[in-house]
Amino acid sequence: MTTTGSTRRRGRRPGPRDTRGEIVAAARELFSTEPFDRVSLRAVARRAGVDPALVHHYFSGKAELFLTATVDISADPEQVLGMLDGIPSQRHGAALVLAFTAVWDTAGRDGRFTEFATVMLSNPDLTSGAREFITTQIGARVTALADPRERELRATLALSQMLGMAMMRYVLRMEPVASMERTRLAEVYGPTFQHYLTGRLSASERLNSSPPAQE
Amino acid sequence: MTTTGSTRRRGRRPGPRDTRGEIVAAARELFSTEPFDRVSLRAVARRAGVDPALVHHYFSGKAELFLTATVDISADPEQVLGMLDGIPSQRHGAALVLAFTAVWDTAGRDGRFTEFATVMLSNPDLTSGAREFITTQIGARVTALADPRERELRATLALSQMLGMAMMRYVLRMEPVASMERTRLAEVYGPTFQHYLTGRLSASERLNSSPPAQE
Repeated sequence: MTTTGSTRRRGRRPGPRDTRGEIVAAARELFSTEPFDRVSLRAVARRAGVDPALVHHYFSGKAELFLTATVDISADPEQVLGMLDGIPSQRHGAALVLAFTAVWDTAGRDGRFTEFATVMLSNPDLTSGAREFITTQIGARVTALADPRERELRATLALSQMLGMAMMRYVLRMEPVASMERTRLAEVYGPTFQHYLTGRLSASERLNSSPPAQE
Repeated sequence: MTTTGSTRRRGRRPGPRDTRGEIVAAARELFSTEPFDRVSLRAVARRAGVDPALVHHYFSGKAELFLTATVDISADPEQVLGMLDGIPSQRHGAALVLAFTAVWDTAGRDGRFTEFATVMLSNPDLTSGAREFITTQIGARVTALADPRERELRATLALSQMLGMAMMRYVLRMEPVASMERTRLAEVYGPTFQHYLTGRLSASERLNSSPPAQE
């Protein structure tokens, strides 16, 4: 076991110990060097220096831990969404594409998105964790300006296009999406995300009395 | 082995024998009753009444055969795209969602989309077959009215959203997309498909001299 920059995370620090964070950090280290099937929760606990029962206390299983660790490593909401700060909301659609690809283009082309998607597909139980993550972490941030009754819908629509875009770009590698410049990608997908985040989703759901926009 | 309605397909008919079609039909029968891993190409050949070498002649492997059989069973382009006939092109976006869910809602909720996506993810070689299928079968039909230079881009964008929508609805089962009525789904996703099929994809790609639309 080599010492890495994150070794300090396992040391005692002033204040309460962040056990969950230490487990995620340990999982991240193991998942980044070992295939999913070869990482055991026991090994994660050992690396984090905690009792294996604590891993089970914080996570429903290896799949959820993997999701959390992968998301933390490659799509930390703050890392992606922090890029939106200071950008006018009417340009969030394109900005979201640029932020997502900034984080995922390298890892995605290395096959990490494929691994991520495969684990999701083979672990239906993951979805409860994924759902909560998306609703609380991503949905709340990205749709902060939206009507609260529509936030979950808007977040789900945006996620569906992000997932599909990533599948085409990193997994199926279908052209022209696979090799497209990020700025061009933001140009073709931006309006869709913008529509999902701030657009009028349907006539029956108009939220104010202004006349319907010409779309 | 029970006789089914498709038994007749294996009999000699007037005219040239459709060996490839018979292999696909046999594969479809086996894949619909057995898990992917338990279907062998040899069993497919036996059921189709052809030499195993012929299966290898027509298909690169089991994954491609599975894709073809599944697509044939569940998303036959004519079955989906035939529904678009007679619908004005400006309503193709919503119609595409209705047609896709008409075919996939039952199979998708039975886990067949998950199986389909899993096989795709674990067989990168499939993508060449998938790419050709999409470009020639789906892309050409759906984007028939588009500038030929943009067809591949438009087909890929539409497919990325269809894939993401299906992932949310059938695999991750995230609400509200998972349980949404098909008509409502067509309402929220329709404009996106319409945009990909017929919309202006970016300012730099304006194809005529009319002023930019207000979006």
